[in-house]
Amino acid sequence: MHSPLNEKFGIQTEDLPDGTVALSLQTDASYTNEIGAVHGGITMLLLDGSMGRAAGRTLKPGQMCATIQFTAQFLLPAEGRLRAVGRVVRRGREVAFLEGECTREDGAVIARALGTWAIR
Amino acid sequence: MHSPLNEKFGIQTEDLPDGTVALSLQTDASYTNEIGAVHGGITMLLLDGSMGRAAGRTLKPGQMCATIQFTAQFLLPAEGRLRAVGRVVRRGREVAFLEGECTREDGAVIARALGTWAIR
Amino acid sequence: MHSPLNEKFGIQTEDLPDGTVALSLQTDASYTNEIGAVHGGITMLLLDGSMGRAAGRTLKPGQMCATIQFTAQFLLPAEGRLRAVGRVVRRGREVAFLEGECTREDGAVIARALGTWAIR
Amino acid sequence: MHSPLNEKFGIQTEDLPDGTVALSLQTDASYTNEIGAVHGGITMLLLDGSMGRAAGRTLKPGQMCATIQFTAQFLLPAEGRLRAVGRVVRRGREVAFLEGECTREDGAVIARALGTWAIR
Repeated sequence: MHSPLNEKFGIQTEDLPDGTVALSLQTDASYTNEIGAVHGGITMLLLDGSMGRAAGRTLKPGQMCATIQFTAQFLLPAEGRLRAVGRVVRRGREVAFLEGECTREDGAVIARALGTWAIR
Repeated sequence: MHSPLNEKFGIQTEDLPDGTVALSLQTDASYTNEIGAVHGGITMLLLDGSMGRAAGRTLKPGQMCATIQFTAQFLLPAEGRLRAVGRVVRRGREVAFLEGECTREDGAVIARALGTWAIR
Repeated sequence: MHSPLNEKFGIQTEDLPDGTVALSLQTDASYTNEIGAVHGGITMLLLDGSMGRAAGRTLKPGQMCATIQFTAQFLLPAEGRLRAVGRVVRRGREVAFLEGECTREDGAVIARALGTWAIR
Repeated sequence: MHSPLNEKFGIQTEDLPDGTVALSLQTDASYTNEIGAVHGGITMLLLDGSMGRAAGRTLKPGQMCATIQFTAQFLLPAEGRLRAVGRVVRRGREVAFLEGECTREDGAVIARALGTWAIR
């Protein structure tokens, strides 16, 4: 599976043996918002991307999936290298339930997410 | 208010007279994910960015704000030029409640969001 | 459509001509939580109920629907008579997207919600 | 801490030694919605209640807390005895981040939640 967006943004992708997916991105000042913090949208881009790709790993040939709803909770400021891991919580026939966690280089969890994907 | 990230990504910013904020981005194939659809994370980047900036417009000097929780619902596929508008629903003393809507060039609403920001 | 739960809890149901559904409940001190405020779960019960019933009004014979994901934002304290209105935002073939708003007797919006339902 | 609502609804409360809170409710046909399933609002009532009470256990005298935003994901149908456990993920000075999980008697997780509470 190739993601043009991950390539464009320099997001590193790891399809882990347990079915989870990790996406990593080295952020710097160019990723900050109006108040000098790394933009929450970047954290969600990584979370959604890792969760969607983990959902994608459960698809059969010819199937597709699309995010239906996504929620993130922001626990701590993002900075430096960010790593999001997405994991399938339950894979139904038409809906997949995912969770994600994004950590900083110091190991602190900065954001957590729940999301649902439709399988078509 | 300057956002390095919006500049980096070519996101256009409009601070509208009614207090809302619109962010626009021209997407193309380089913004697509593993299944060839514009990445949901891009839609959330625009939504979160417009809502956060709208929250920022309510701040007094010395105040800051940060996303606490964010939810988006994905109604239709994203493609072409995307435009997210963020609006303050209620501005409390320590918490701001925002909503956002992202549309395509054809005017269709592709995603809607609710989010809360902490004011510090 | 009959809801044993709405009857049990004394929740009044209105199927409005525009397809929306309104649920109302008169709360009092017996609905309060540990800090003397009307329990947020009651507000969500009304929101989820009105949205789910509005989704149900779009079903064809033999179809069913079930909540997949639900988010609420709490703007103001709940008290007295509460009224939640659920509305279909988009009805896809397999997923319905809903929104809801809960108001107090004074007309103030106390909570807003987004939710998605699977259609089977 | 006494909750009139938990008493009214026959919800059993356990303040566990690790700071988490478990709420349990025996459901039956009287808790079902229009399609004969136990109402998702009941699951959220238990989740929100357990998470809010867990947040409450971190308060100092004179402090209060209130739900700001809440999201639940519904994995499996609710039935029989339901038990929700709420846990503090991070307790900031002004915001507490909680998670919750609701299980059935057979041990299956039927719903998961993330929520944020304001501390005042």
